[in-house]
This record gives sequence, structure tokens and C-alpha cells, in this order.
Amino acid sequence: MLNLSMYTLGSRRSCIRELFEYGRMRREIVGDDHVFDFSLGNPSIPAPKEVHCAIRELLDTQSSLYLHGYTTAAGDLSLRQAIADDLNRRFSAAVRPQDFFIGCGAAPELVSVIRALAVKNAEFLVIAPFFPEYRPFVENCGGQLVVIPPDIPNFQIDLQAVESALTPRTQALILNSPNNPCGTVYTEQTLRALAAILTKKSRLFGHPIYLISDEPYRELVYDGKTVPFLPNIYSDTIVCYSYSKSLSLPGERIGYICVPPQTSEHDGLLAAISGAARSIGHVCAPSMMQKVIQKCVDVRPDLRPYDENRHLLADALRSFGYEMASPDGAFYLFVKAPGGDSEAFSEKAKERDLLIVPGTDFGCREYFRLCYCVDPDMIRRSLPIFKELIEQP
Amino acid sequence: MLNLSMYTLGSRRSCIRELFEYGRMRREIVGDDHVFDFSLGNPSIPAPKEVHCAIRELLDTQSSLYLHGYTTAAGDLSLRQAIADDLNRRFSAAVRPQDFFIGCGAAPELVSVIRALAVKNAEFLVIAPFFPEYRPFVENCGGQLVVIPPDIPNFQIDLQAVESALTPRTQALILNSPNNPCGTVYTEQTLRALAAILTKKSRLFGHPIYLISDEPYRELVYDGKTVPFLPNIYSDTIVCYSYSKSLSLPGERIGYICVPPQTSEHDGLLAAISGAARSIGHVCAPSMMQKVIQKCVDVRPDLRPYDENRHLLADALRSFGYEMASPDGAFYLFVKAPGGDSEAFSEKAKERDLLIVPGTDFGCREYFRLCYCVDPDMIRRSLPIFKELIEQP
Repeated sequence: MLNLSMYTLGSRRSCIRELFEYGRMRREIVGDDHVFDFSLGNPSIPAPKEVHCAIRELLDTQSSLYLHGYTTAAGDLSLRQAIADDLNRRFSAAVRPQDFFIGCGAAPELVSVIRALAVKNAEFLVIAPFFPEYRPFVENCGGQLVVIPPDIPNFQIDLQAVESALTPRTQALILNSPNNPCGTVYTEQTLRALAAILTKKSRLFGHPIYLISDEPYRELVYDGKTVPFLPNIYSDTIVCYSYSKSLSLPGERIGYICVPPQTSEHDGLLAAISGAARSIGHVCAPSMMQKVIQKCVDVRPDLRPYDENRHLLADALRSFGYEMASPDGAFYLFVKAPGGDSEAFSEKAKERDLLIVPGTDFGCREYFRLCYCVDPDMIRRSLPIFKELIEQP
Repeated sequence: MLNLSMYTLGSRRSCIRELFEYGRMRREIVGDDHVFDFSLGNPSIPAPKEVHCAIRELLDTQSSLYLHGYTTAAGDLSLRQAIADDLNRRFSAAVRPQDFFIGCGAAPELVSVIRALAVKNAEFLVIAPFFPEYRPFVENCGGQLVVIPPDIPNFQIDLQAVESALTPRTQALILNSPNNPCGTVYTEQTLRALAAILTKKSRLFGHPIYLISDEPYRELVYDGKTVPFLPNIYSDTIVCYSYSKSLSLPGERIGYICVPPQTSEHDGLLAAISGAARSIGHVCAPSMMQKVIQKCVDVRPDLRPYDENRHLLADALRSFGYEMASPDGAFYLFVKAPGGDSEAFSEKAKERDLLIVPGTDFGCREYFRLCYCVDPDMIRRSLPIFKELIEQP
């Protein structure tokens, strides 16, 4: 008498979590220095010092009732104003406080947006490789997930495949750039071409096809690259942002949904998002953290440790002969498995206590994912194993 | 092309929220001292000082990565151990850390439990008066809400009505004690009689009927009354707790689900709850607040301000001739509307800038709700209006 799909979702451990638990177990047996765990995307740089300063200042100057009381469901107006100002300054946008809904991180934000758009037989497109949780988010509100195959080896977007996959039932395309798992940033050229297709098909079908931009890694880009602000490229964009990575606060569960003014059905869409959030038990985003974010809205992380790790790992792997997606952002490398089967390769690596995530669940079995938000010493110690694994396949 | 039920849920403002906004508007016109707002159940006593001490201590002694990193989805093991120890000590229970799932407050916890139990045609019973959000929580996962009429004037439970309403499709009964909106605490006698009915019917139907105990007001009881620990009375109880009221942290969104060891389908149920949480985007409860709660697990609020308000308001209203439900807990009075129509009475009160919530949405139109988590001076200033309203009906 239990809901079977909920039971299945809760009892089938994710491959990533299983690898992580395996690593913990192995560390107890063989010691910390002999396990090389690249499985979990947990930020390894601390929150900027401004975050703790802000918390202390709030405790010193504000009342408990203000700090910890309910805010409106959409979040403090002053926080929404601060975020709008920041986006307008950085991207020449024209968003207003009333275009925002402060949420508890990208996951429930995506769920709320997807539920708001989940009409009968709705289809949601995702570009492989993609974050595997998109599947339960879509399927558990009755939607259908349509997967666009990966554009190997460039990991941009197979635009022809997108064009063929769009149907009158397509409600939205979920985009994640910088991408988890492949670390690539979609170029402005790719995005403009995608926008043209979506615009054409929206007109053809007589209803908007929304672009849901899942942006937890927006600020994590290297080599001076930039992540285009999608609402400037495609007007029917809904942004789902999170401070998990940009302020190294993954456990604090805070971010925002932005529905810019020019978005089709703007007011109705925001109402539906707010109703969807209510239906999943959203009351407000954590209140004190709302005040903290307001004070830290333009604080950016020091990405050097990630960038150094990225070079350390990517340069070495390339020198051994590994091929990989261009690692422009986030903290992931997406590497082609020697032999072409990442599951077999991951098993072989596991025998050496090297823990890597096969790309299967991301929709790309040929590649595996490495998280480089780790101790650089662990990277250094792991390199001989990577070398061996490609030399003795 | 929006989901209509989400749109409706998000665009239809709750009566409570509307009254509150009206009050804000009126205060600007007639001044703070001339608006008497009893609409919103927002705690009015600060968090115990131990909460801010705990935050400062954590900032002083712990790393950012530990404080703000992801925890497991079920929450820090050490927090779950601390809560289990506290419950075992207070209620001679025998719960274990693995019986807990740390959630983001009672609302998403209830959603997760309801979704876990939402099989085809599932029915969920609620006892009027009841918290109106139960309806979207149940209906948006395909369940049917079955309302047991209020037991006027005692506001215990009409057990015969419950017995008649139970069917083979009944998956659970949602219970809220101390109750929002009526402030009553169900007696041990009521609960034992209810448990006997549920046990009998569970046997008859060949499957457990769960009791979902929604307990945000557990610690808010007066006159030395106690709230029975339901798992000690009925073995198929699932507890949904929140620290919103007990630590005056309503905006911080933290609480727990407890599925005690003796619960039917214990492991499967916890797996389904965890899957349901995942399907609505739960990643973990706010991480730093998990550490704070662990340090404050047995801290109890100073209820005197609420108790004084309760006496001030209830004694005066009774002396004017108002009848009300026995106000044993929470921070609500549920008062019989002179004339018997709380909507008409609320409108009349509104003309005097006295804001009270009609009982209609709670399933009891004859009564209205007063929140006494307010400034006692406002209560004093409001009394002449209450007096007038009953004398000149």
C-alpha cells in the first residue's frame, strides 16, 4: 500500500551516492590516502568570508523575530530587489523584484517550474549529458522526458535533433550551462541557433516553448569565458539559480526563480510557479539566509583552487592520452572511457580505489565524470592510476 | 498552456494572507494603534537565546565546508541521534536515528508522507477544523481529502463519523494536536478510542491505516497539560514535527519525520518517504540549522507571553459572552461567531479594523480564529470592539 514509484525512487540508490558510500567504507580499510574519490560534486572551497561576516552582523544588529520569522512565499522584497539590481548591472537586463521567487535551491525550483508547466501529455526536452534528477522531477508530475543525444565530441547541442524532437506537446527545454556532468559552456552561437529554432516552433505550434535555464554553476567559469544571460537571447526563458556553488553554501538550500518581464504569460506563469511551490510544501526560503544573500549578492567566489585542480587533472589526463569535453566551467571533467564503455572502465577503476562516475545515468555511456572539487594532493596521488588504466586497457 | 490547478492554487490568495495584507494597508492609513490584526500565526516570542549562542559557537569553531556542506538527504546522523535520545527520554519511546528523516518544516514533510502513501484512489481523512493546506497537499498527488465534521462544542473527535468514513481506500488520517485553528489538545481518552477504531478497521481491510501526526505545536501547551506521544498509543503513527514554533524559527524551515520501529512496512515506508522527498526536490534540510538544532534539541521556549495573552483575551471574551473551544495549546482561540456565521461576523469586524479569520476554510463556518501571538497592548485596545460586536449584533 505504498506508492510504488516513490518507493522505487527512494530505495534505488543513485550510482553517485553508492560510489561515495563505497569510498567511505574503503577509506576505513585502506586509509584516506589510498582512496581516490572523484564521485561527489560537493564544493571544496569555503564560503567567502563575507558570508560569516554577514551572519555575525545580523545576529548583532537584528531581532530574532526579523531574522527567523516567515517571509512571504516569494521571499523578502529587499532581497529580490538586490538580486534584480545585480543582474541588471551585470547583464544589462531589466528584471524587477516582482519577477523573482526565492526558492530552496535549484532542485525544488525546477520542480516548481516543471509542475507549473505540466499540462496533460507535456513533454520536456533535455540535452544529454544531463543531470539525472531531471527525470524524476518531470516524470513525477506526469510529464514525459525527451532526451536529445549528446553532441560528441563537442558537447554543444545537436540542433537538428532538437528541431526534430519538438512537438506541439513540448512545453519546455531544460538547459544546464555550465553543464553537469560535462563542464562545458554552451556558446552564444549555439544558444542563438537554439533560440531561433524554439522561436520558429513556438510560432508554428501557437504556444511558447519555454527554456528552463538551470544555473547553479553560472559563476564557475574559467579562462575568462562568460555564460550568456539567456533571457537576453531567448525571451521565453525561466532562470533557476542556486547559491550552492557560487557562494559554497550547498547545504543551505537557497536560490531563485526569475521570470523576466518579457516572458509569455508572465503573470500567470509566476502564479502557477507559486502554486506549484505551495503544492510541494514551500513556505519560504530559509529566512536568515535570505538576509545573508542580500548582503552578499555580488560576492563572487575565489575560483583559483578549482582552476588549479582543473589544470592539474585535465593536463595530466590529456598527456596520458585521454580525450575529454572542453572543461570550461563547473567543477567536472567528462572524459572518454578508454574502450568506450564507462561502466566497465569505472568498475576497473574501482578495483584500484579510484572512484569515477560512469556517464550512463547522464545519458552518455561512452564518457565518465570526474569531480575536481577535491584535495589537489588526492589528484596528484591518483595520476599514476589513471596512467596505468589507459596504458593497460 | 499552464497547469490549471497550479495556477489556481497560486493565484487564489488565502483568506488569511488577504486579511494580513489588508491590515498592512489599513495601518498605513489609520495608524498602527488602530488596526487589530489577529490573522497571522507568526510566533511573537523570540528564539531562545541558546539558538544564537549555538550559531556563534558554530561560526567560531567549525569550518565553512562542515557548516554549509550537503548533509545526507535524511540529515546529519548526529542530529537524528540527538532527537531520538530526547524523544526516548521524554516519552519512554524507543526510536533510533534511522527512524528519522530531517525535513524542511512540517509542510514539505507532510507532502512527502502523503505522496509516499498516495496509491490509486487513496483517501486521507482530516478532522475539522483542519489546516487548509492539507487539501492541496492531498489533492495534488491524486489523493482524496475526506473531512470529518467538527465535534462542536468540545472540538475533540466525532469517533462515530470517523468509523463510518473509513473505507478500504483510506490510507491515513491526518491529526493535528494542539490544533490549528482551534487550540485544543486531543485527550488521551479520545486518542485511545480513535486508535481502537483504526486498529479494528486496519485488520478488517487487511492493510494499515496510518495516523499522520502533524505536530508543529507539540511544545505549546498550557496549564500543565501534556500532548500524548502518539506512537505510544497507536503503532502505525508517522510523526511530522517542526521547530517553527517550538524554537520560534518559522522562517528557517526545519523539522523531522519520525517513523518509529514498530510501524508497519517500516523500511519500505521510509524509502517511499525519501523517494517522495526526492521527487519534490528535497536535497537536505538547511545544514547549519541542523547543527544548531542538535545543540538546542532539548531547549524549550518560555511560553509565558503566550499564556498571558491567552488569559487576557480568553477571559475578556468569555466575560463578554463569547463561547470558544477549550484553548489548551498552540496560540489560537476558536470562537463561536455571534449569529453563527463567521464570514458575516468577520466582515463586520473588518469594518472596525479588527481582523479575524472566519472558520470556513478550516471546515467550521460557525467559528472564527484568533491568533494571540500578538502584542498584549493590541489585545487590550481591541477588547472594547469585541464587546461592542457581541452587544450590538
